[in-house]
Amino acid sequence: MRVKLDGKIKEFRAVWFENGRVKIIDQRALPERFEIYTAENCEEVCRAIKDMVVRGAPAIGATAVYAMAQAWIQRRDLKETAELLRKTRPTAFDLFHGIEIMLSLKEKDVVEAGERYVDSLVENCRKIGIEGSRVIKHKCRILTHCNAGALATVDYGTALAPIRIAKEQGKELFVFVDETRPRLQGAKLTSWELTNEGIRHAIIADNASGYFMQRNEVDIVIVGADRVASNGDFANKIGTYEKAVLAKENGIPFYVAVPSSTFDFSIESGKEIPIEERDENEVLSIDGKRVAPEGASARNPAFDITPARYVTAFITENGIFKPHKLDRLHGNQ
Amino acid sequence: MRVKLDGKIKEFRAVWFENGRVKIIDQRALPERFEIYTAENCEEVCRAIKDMVVRGAPAIGATAVYAMAQAWIQRRDLKETAELLRKTRPTAFDLFHGIEIMLSLKEKDVVEAGERYVDSLVENCRKIGIEGSRVIKHKCRILTHCNAGALATVDYGTALAPIRIAKEQGKELFVFVDETRPRLQGAKLTSWELTNEGIRHAIIADNASGYFMQRNEVDIVIVGADRVASNGDFANKIGTYEKAVLAKENGIPFYVAVPSSTFDFSIESGKEIPIEERDENEVLSIDGKRVAPEGASARNPAFDITPARYVTAFITENGIFKPHKLDRLHGNQ
Repeated sequence: MRVKLDGKIKEFRAVWFENGRVKIIDQRALPERFEIYTAENCEEVCRAIKDMVVRGAPAIGATAVYAMAQAWIQRRDLKETAELLRKTRPTAFDLFHGIEIMLSLKEKDVVEAGERYVDSLVENCRKIGIEGSRVIKHKCRILTHCNAGALATVDYGTALAPIRIAKEQGKELFVFVDETRPRLQGAKLTSWELTNEGIRHAIIADNASGYFMQRNEVDIVIVGADRVASNGDFANKIGTYEKAVLAKENGIPFYVAVPSSTFDFSIESGKEIPIEERDENEVLSIDGKRVAPEGASARNPAFDITPARYVTAFITENGIFKPHKLDRLHGNQ
Repeated sequence: MRVKLDGKIKEFRAVWFENGRVKIIDQRALPERFEIYTAENCEEVCRAIKDMVVRGAPAIGATAVYAMAQAWIQRRDLKETAELLRKTRPTAFDLFHGIEIMLSLKEKDVVEAGERYVDSLVENCRKIGIEGSRVIKHKCRILTHCNAGALATVDYGTALAPIRIAKEQGKELFVFVDETRPRLQGAKLTSWELTNEGIRHAIIADNASGYFMQRNEVDIVIVGADRVASNGDFANKIGTYEKAVLAKENGIPFYVAVPSSTFDFSIESGKEIPIEERDENEVLSIDGKRVAPEGASARNPAFDITPARYVTAFITENGIFKPHKLDRLHGNQ
């Protein structure tokens, strides 16, 4: 991804492996400060995932894969490392998928295998971009939720990949960016990525997306996913279900852009996806400042489940699939 | 309304008239600080309405009525005063309704007429509470959006009035309070009122209401309104339309609690209601701290229109009415 630093454009990935260390763009500091978090060991990687230094299902998967490579170099027990990593966050499937792949390796060079995993993830996101750019017409007005960009996926993004590629193709675009409370990944991260890419956009309160849909100002919705079940139900950032219902109500196509590493064919439906409930202070306070009255409490589910019937199609590296045709992907995983 | 100050409970109205001054609980300072804003003249009242020292359609109406009474005492031209007041905010109907009533007075004591207007508004809210308490069963779990409480209506509230009365009736209740970005009236004001009343509640991100509806944790939705058209379409705080669509999708009754002063029978449908778009900094910054990247912009509609077909019924001081039966109210206005 392009990052403007001191007036110059530099290329970055959201996470990479360097001299035995896992390096992560610290997403908690953006857009105010561009900082790199360095994890010396698995414990520091786990903290980074829990505290959301890195977030986004594919990026969490890549981070866990690098943590396994790091553990292998440090001659730590890979099964124990896997156990620690699995406990960090429950919803994103890529975490478990990446760990499984690393545990099942027969070969000797685990670091090389880790790099291959991440390179193929990046390549899959680029393909998602090319596939998805077909549904983005010239002058398209797109609504997206949370951040399913390069930060969430190492590079390109899932939901943002088709937008990046459509921009490269010379199409005029406009993106409505849901700010995405409570952690404001839209206002802070998606807007930061789109600003770096020079893509026109407006941040809106999560409350306002229905308003713009109702007024025919939104042509399509594209979101990412944290886990997709066999039947096409999927988990994604809290509020995604609301956008999906509103899109259907207003006759607006609703796309889910997702690499094969996010499909969990071991479960039948969204009912089996565990939903993380995070600390209530993410709602009661904003950027460390309390907004709620003393003594008030909050509920803070981090994800919701959108039933498959609201999904127009899944945009994957292997093509665009209607929810009931997902079994065609099964063999490819 | 009950306000806890220095450990003691005191009774307050959101706005009142005292020694020729309009006194307003400063809603910008809550819940952090309890401050009274004093308006010496119409210009200071206009600033209070524009800057949202006072907000909520009925409370804005009452404030404008007091400003007219103040202008009368100060021997200012009432038509000019009305003109200044009308320009403050475009959506809330009570503002225009209250001003019209004051302009049409034949009697001599304009102050007394103003007090009568506000007293009858408070009494109407109490009646809304009694009527609305019929739809709140024991152990009811209610979702509300924005603040349609005593702060928004001088006392009792519209959406919160039935909740207050149901509590008095000894019913166990639980309220999901949408935080209501961008200005957080739910997290800051509704939660403050419910805390003062000892009513159990949880603040949730606006993104999370669909999640709780989907899981059958919400029994009914009650909101207020800023203006209701003849056909039952109504304007309310941005995001209300989203909640209405989600309630319908999940088979949850959706009530609009509203005094007769908010009905605008001069317009046919919601299409004729002007929607205020406020400063983009309400979205780009939170409590004065910028959250968005430099150079990013935002769209900030303050209200949306919910079509009548999503409304189960309107709860008014004259009873509970289905949207297509609103014409029965017309004569009462």
